[in-house]
Amino acid sequence: MRTQAAIIGAGPAGLLLSHLLHLQGIESVVLETRSRADIESTIRAGVLEQGTMDILTNAGVGERMRAQGALHHGIELAFGCRRHRIDLTELTGKAITVYPQHEVIRDLVAARLAAQGQILFEVADVAIGGIDTDAPTVTFTYRGEHERLEADFVIGCDGFHGVARNAIPASARQEFQRTYPFGWFGILVESAPSSQELIYAQHERGFALISTRTPTVQRLYFQCDPHDSVEHWPDDRIWAELHARVETSDGWRINEGRIFQKNIIGMRSFVCTTMRHGRLFLAGDAAHIVPPTGAKGMNLAVSDVRFLAEALDSHYRGGGTALLDGYPARALQRIWRAEYFSWWMTRMLHTFADATPFERAMQRAELENVVGSRALAQALAENYVGAF
Amino acid sequence: MRTQAAIIGAGPAGLLLSHLLHLQGIESVVLETRSRADIESTIRAGVLEQGTMDILTNAGVGERMRAQGALHHGIELAFGCRRHRIDLTELTGKAITVYPQHEVIRDLVAARLAAQGQILFEVADVAIGGIDTDAPTVTFTYRGEHERLEADFVIGCDGFHGVARNAIPASARQEFQRTYPFGWFGILVESAPSSQELIYAQHERGFALISTRTPTVQRLYFQCDPHDSVEHWPDDRIWAELHARVETSDGWRINEGRIFQKNIIGMRSFVCTTMRHGRLFLAGDAAHIVPPTGAKGMNLAVSDVRFLAEALDSHYRGGGTALLDGYPARALQRIWRAEYFSWWMTRMLHTFADATPFERAMQRAELENVVGSRALAQALAENYVGAF
Repeated sequence: MRTQAAIIGAGPAGLLLSHLLHLQGIESVVLETRSRADIESTIRAGVLEQGTMDILTNAGVGERMRAQGALHHGIELAFGCRRHRIDLTELTGKAITVYPQHEVIRDLVAARLAAQGQILFEVADVAIGGIDTDAPTVTFTYRGEHERLEADFVIGCDGFHGVARNAIPASARQEFQRTYPFGWFGILVESAPSSQELIYAQHERGFALISTRTPTVQRLYFQCDPHDSVEHWPDDRIWAELHARVETSDGWRINEGRIFQKNIIGMRSFVCTTMRHGRLFLAGDAAHIVPPTGAKGMNLAVSDVRFLAEALDSHYRGGGTALLDGYPARALQRIWRAEYFSWWMTRMLHTFADATPFERAMQRAELENVVGSRALAQALAENYVGAF
Repeated sequence: MRTQAAIIGAGPAGLLLSHLLHLQGIESVVLETRSRADIESTIRAGVLEQGTMDILTNAGVGERMRAQGALHHGIELAFGCRRHRIDLTELTGKAITVYPQHEVIRDLVAARLAAQGQILFEVADVAIGGIDTDAPTVTFTYRGEHERLEADFVIGCDGFHGVARNAIPASARQEFQRTYPFGWFGILVESAPSSQELIYAQHERGFALISTRTPTVQRLYFQCDPHDSVEHWPDDRIWAELHARVETSDGWRINEGRIFQKNIIGMRSFVCTTMRHGRLFLAGDAAHIVPPTGAKGMNLAVSDVRFLAEALDSHYRGGGTALLDGYPARALQRIWRAEYFSWWMTRMLHTFADATPFERAMQRAELENVVGSRALAQALAENYVGAF
């Protein structure tokens, strides 16, 4: 097999890149270890910046998102038994859309398949070779056969645990990392929204987040030990914890309902600044992870592949390698800003077991400053909506 | 001896309070352990917010400050071999004035003595009693005699190491503290200003600050080990360090000159939220310390005593104890904001030996964000000029 761009991973980064390249007349093959049903149903992030929506719309895959996504013009910060609204639209002129990542994936898979795009699901034994040459290859097993894909470029969109980043020699890679001493316990609940907007709650018992998937399904999270197990959390313990952390003195309460999914996710900040090595490029979670507090993960993946699609387009149109060479620096400018914002939101909203009383006082002072200062609220809002 | 307000400490807080009370017809006696010559010559802070200037001007002690102080409309942040200006006036409509603290003290001492105000210098053995009663007392030694001062109220303006805060039982005090693992090495230099505006420099070798006292004297600082000794720092080592930390790629250089004073100061954040106990009130450094990075110390002292003067005025005019009771909460709102800002500036600009590569990357990303985002620059500027 031969193609122009071998794309590893059918997440938002890999699928959107394949689609954008297709629109530019560039061939690609997408390799994915999981099944189509699996990637189209796994619950992940769900906040899209305006810029992400624009990219999806311009690429012709935004119809369902615009119809079914929920436009949010603000978020709330809850602390000290009170809620404080950050009016995103008033502060920035922009808004965000809540539309789950697996729905974006469904839209992209449908668009690729409608255009006879090649997505090979359930591949195994993926290995990358020759990235220091002009003829890189990806070998893998597909339907029991050993396959070899030759390409001009290999694009690693296979996430933090994928093979692509590790195809770059460790000695050539520069990486920055922080693993947080807590995780998020996430639940899906059959009930009407508790709030029309997302509520980010800081509480001495730990962070909590109130969000919504559909008019009948809520998505709620609360900070937990990352090594804890969902078995330790019967429903009544979960509700008691959420009520304690989020409810405010004005009598507002969380709507309870049947909990039909529970999971625990770890929290990590990670940047591999070596986003290109020879003919291998990294995009999305393969190169960087943000903790979910800033809702930036999918948006960064989308902006990475937009830059990369432009660079490959320029290359194939005879523009040389300038944009390809400049891809890491261009992408990293946005990545570092999002990493900073995600780290800032995480620090400001979570409870750190080892924080001194002074550090806890500073955390509260920072929150008071954000809700009391238009300038700082605007800085938060601009980062949240991605207005830069 | 008897007075209405026994004020311990002739720093900016104690002297200004005595003067403000005098203007309201309230008697006070100021007790100071050091000599007049000593307090009028000790080099301390030197940045006055507009609000501080207004209070001094309205109290009739701003004439020399207005004539000799230097109005600054911006500051610079230096990092990555470049300088970035924060235009304070464009961002906030306000400015700051560089006028040394010991000059403020000279102006206040002169005003108090001109009005026959009582300042007792070089007192010793100061002890506070009866603060839980309606008749508190301060006993002390003055010119070899044991003295007893009876008062309606005792006001502790005697700094972090003074006796006043410790007169409150430890069990009744709530305190928050962080001691930083570095100090500032300060020098006074005979030479023309290197820069018209203050330069706050972040560098992997450590923080540095370029400021100016007069047209012929510069005040320069650089981050150091708080346990280091000035003897370890011959002039050429100091200059090498400053050049390495602050100079930028545009060829700008620090003006050298004769160094005629060297000192090392420690860095601490501290808040005693128990600012009132019975008839004892705390103001200024007796209740709180900020690291000097935000230039807030003297400004907080001034705002404390303004609130306290208003509260005592209300009390003596028959308004009851409401303002006196509300003094800690009112003062602390501003104190926590300044503590947060000073901690933020300190964290953003200093080198922490134990910082991980990720934390160093976040520090740089934060600086890039401040100079790249008008909203965040405005938040910094508003806090710096005290526009709240």
